Amino acid sequence: MGKLQDDFNSYRSRMNERVMETANTNIKRFFALDTTSYAAGALDVKTKEMLGLVASMVLRCDDCIKYHLQKCYEEGVNTDEMNEIFMIANLVGGSIVIPHYRRALEFWEELTEQEA
Amino acid sequence: MGKLQDDFNSYRSRMNERVMETANTNIKRFFALDTTSYAAGALDVKTKEMLGLVASMVLRCDDCIKYHLQKCYEEGVNTDEMNEIFMIANLVGGSIVIPHYRRALEFWEELTEQEA
Amino acid sequence: MGKLQDDFNSYRSRMNERVMETANTNIKRFFALDTTSYAAGALDVKTKEMLGLVASMVLRCDDCIKYHLQKCYEEGVNTDEMNEIFMIANLVGGSIVIPHYRRALEFWEELTEQEA
Amino acid sequence: MGKLQDDFNSYRSRMNERVMETANTNIKRFFALDTTSYAAGALDVKTKEMLGLVASMVLRCDDCIKYHLQKCYEEGVNTDEMNEIFMIANLVGGSIVIPHYRRALEFWEELTEQEA
Amino acid sequence: MGKLQDDFNSYRSRMNERVMETANTNIKRFFALDTTSYAAGALDVKTKEMLGLVASMVLRCDDCIKYHLQKCYEEGVNTDEMNEIFMIANLVGGSIVIPHYRRALEFWEELTEQEA
Amino acid sequence: MGKLQDDFNSYRSRMNERVMETANTNIKRFFALDTTSYAAGALDVKTKEMLGLVASMVLRCDDCIKYHLQKCYEEGVNTDEMNEIFMIANLVGGSIVIPHYRRALEFWEELTEQEA
Repeated sequence: MGKLQDDFNSYRSRMNERVMETANTNIKRFFALDTTSYAAGALDVKTKEMLGLVASMVLRCDDCIKYHLQKCYEEGVNTDEMNEIFMIANLVGGSIVIPHYRRALEFWEELTEQEA
Repeated sequence: MGKLQDDFNSYRSRMNERVMETANTNIKRFFALDTTSYAAGALDVKTKEMLGLVASMVLRCDDCIKYHLQKCYEEGVNTDEMNEIFMIANLVGGSIVIPHYRRALEFWEELTEQEA
Repeated sequence: MGKLQDDFNSYRSRMNERVMETANTNIKRFFALDTTSYAAGALDVKTKEMLGLVASMVLRCDDCIKYHLQKCYEEGVNTDEMNEIFMIANLVGGSIVIPHYRRALEFWEELTEQEA
Repeated sequence: MGKLQDDFNSYRSRMNERVMETANTNIKRFFALDTTSYAAGALDVKTKEMLGLVASMVLRCDDCIKYHLQKCYEEGVNTDEMNEIFMIANLVGGSIVIPHYRRALEFWEELTEQEA
Repeated sequence: MGKLQDDFNSYRSRMNERVMETANTNIKRFFALDTTSYAAGALDVKTKEMLGLVASMVLRCDDCIKYHLQKCYEEGVNTDEMNEIFMIANLVGGSIVIPHYRRALEFWEELTEQEA
Repeated sequence: MGKLQDDFNSYRSRMNERVMETANTNIKRFFALDTTSYAAGALDVKTKEMLGLVASMVLRCDDCIKYHLQKCYEEGVNTDEMNEIFMIANLVGGSIVIPHYRRALEFWEELTEQEA
């Protein structure tokens, strides 16, 4: 696992454990919804992860972007498809998204380069 | 065509004509990008329109939501699929999206009821 | 009930019924969370409704603002308290909130004038 | 004065009067800042109104847009200049701004047509 | 004082000093409003700081969140109350708030652990 | 070149190169629009860069702010003018902008101190 992924995942895992130890019932239900909403249903997981990614990009949340980039990669989204998602995010969200696109591209390249 | 669609499309068409008559070259290029980015490529049109819809919902733009609802309907998105998109939009964007979801549902029902 | 409240509540009720008839399980769970999160707990309902109102104002959602104004009114928030909430919303969210504040004030005055 | 301007200005004036009658001191100070910040200083009024307009467009507040369109018009911004502001707003804020641009264009045309 | 607080407060203090040395009158007035709006009035300071916190969370500003977490802690907000604020912020703002909630929780735990 | 500028520019340049090597045609067209929209036209470059800055501040994108601060500096915006832009950004965007203003001020001081 590359450095960017490692940094992101280790902090996320550590703090999600703290959430599970300290949160109230409603927060835990909200986190459960955050998991089950991306499960296969009428739409497959790949499509849902692409939806989660584009939503995260236009709302400009780097951590959310990293999470969904990993999931998209696991679901087999290829670089041509990813570029079309990047374009829709830049288009809808505007040039204010570009710095997040740069960081997303860096993260995506770390994900895809580990293949080689 | 139902009333909600008609109101939306007639204003949009009328003002897009005014845009084309008055805008400068860069604005016209931006509008062209807004069209070509949703064309079939590595991703099909249906997927891209779902991406456009979820982005519009989390950014809470009713007109953009209506536009992509029409396109999703034309591309064959069914109501079960649409509900999963609605859920991801509500989840990622939060309860602040709910009033837009209500209006989206009303528009979607107008679109799907015309079948009967 | 004044006209602004009536218009808001009748549309909201009608579409919430459509939601309950058409939504999937996760959407219904999300709506349930939206109710239970404002119930009395460590914080009382009045405080939670003020939190919901200020969040709705800085995110600039007129329907959400109307909903929480009604709840705040029912919970006994008075006009001096409401003005301090309005100020924090304008301050944190900026002058872009002012048009929403104007509409909120109009709605609040309808709520409080029915007393007389 | 055209219909769009009239509707906007009459509601705005009426509610600003209610604000002045009901608001607390801090809200009044905030409104005062909202006036004095656009006064001539190191930057002239025309530049400041263009800044207010582009900020309003990327934050997608139709009422704020209308207000600054009027001010820009009074300060002598011409249609070529306005189109360049529209482009920067669409570019930075993304296609989600387009419906607001359509309404802004309609309002701008009402402003400029009254000359003829 | 824990490391997270220390990093935040030292940068904030240093730059607020630069603001006070370089800003114009209106900026100073705006900063003054930012202080006086949270003073006790019709609402007590604890309530106002909770309002400031939830507004900062749904607008997803980590620095603003840290500031109001400190103030809430000083005003005696306990962890059960804080969890209910966290829930309302996640609910209204959506899952896009979760990464900010993780960082808020980390900061909150640093604040509350210093008691032991 | 100061450290803040150097860090920002080196990452930006490196990733923009990756964009140019990996992006699809539409993304490249979008980046081209992002350049040409700030070129001199009916409005001069200085005015356009001030528009880009205020838009970036109210949308709270630190990287975008840094970029336009550099451009404004190159176009001869002086500190009195900059303070008036800062004020409009804080006013329109609200106190949630303040942490970004602090970082903008730090960057601006690095830019202007290199003169001495």
